Amino acid sequence: MEENSVIYIGDKPVMNYVLAVLTQLKGDSGVVTLKARGRSISRAVDTAEIARNRFIPDLKVAGITIGTENMPSEQGRTVNVSSMEIVLCKGQ
Amino acid sequence: MEENSVIYIGDKPVMNYVLAVLTQLKGDSGVVTLKARGRSISRAVDTAEIARNRFIPDLKVAGITIGTENMPSEQGRTVNVSSMEIVLCKGQ
Repeated sequence: MEENSVIYIGDKPVMNYVLAVLTQLKGDSGVVTLKARGRSISRAVDTAEIARNRFIPDLKVAGITIGTENMPSEQGRTVNVSSMEIVLCKGQ
Repeated sequence: MEENSVIYIGDKPVMNYVLAVLTQLKGDSGVVTLKARGRSISRAVDTAEIARNRFIPDLKVAGITIGTENMPSEQGRTVNVSSMEIVLCKGQ
């Protein structure tokens, strides 16, 4: 299991990420962090909500932070992209 | 000014919402809440980040909550849509 159970949310179907959350939470750590940038941010929220409402009722949102990251664009400049982290934890 | 200074984030260009945030914070209330659903969630994060990084350096994120709302679909069924609220407040 990778350090701190971080799941990076990209362009795949949302159920792929929900399954990743369920798999991570089966391990000893009851904490998983979702990280997303730009357009994928809404998919991170979908992932957290589906995992919580349909699969793990005692899953809690421990914290949400937003930020901005500098990314190199194709033209060689840097562009600012919004990012979000959602920390989820199971029960107490 | 509407109650509690709520700005609903939709499909308009992000700078429209940034301008709305700046206008609200010019009033006596130093607090503004951004509400978004579905695909607009990432635009809400963009709005908060642009307002904070480019225009109001002492703007703080007071809280972020996520949830799920039931909405009627065009076929008469209800669909679940993720929602997010970001509360922003101007430093003291």
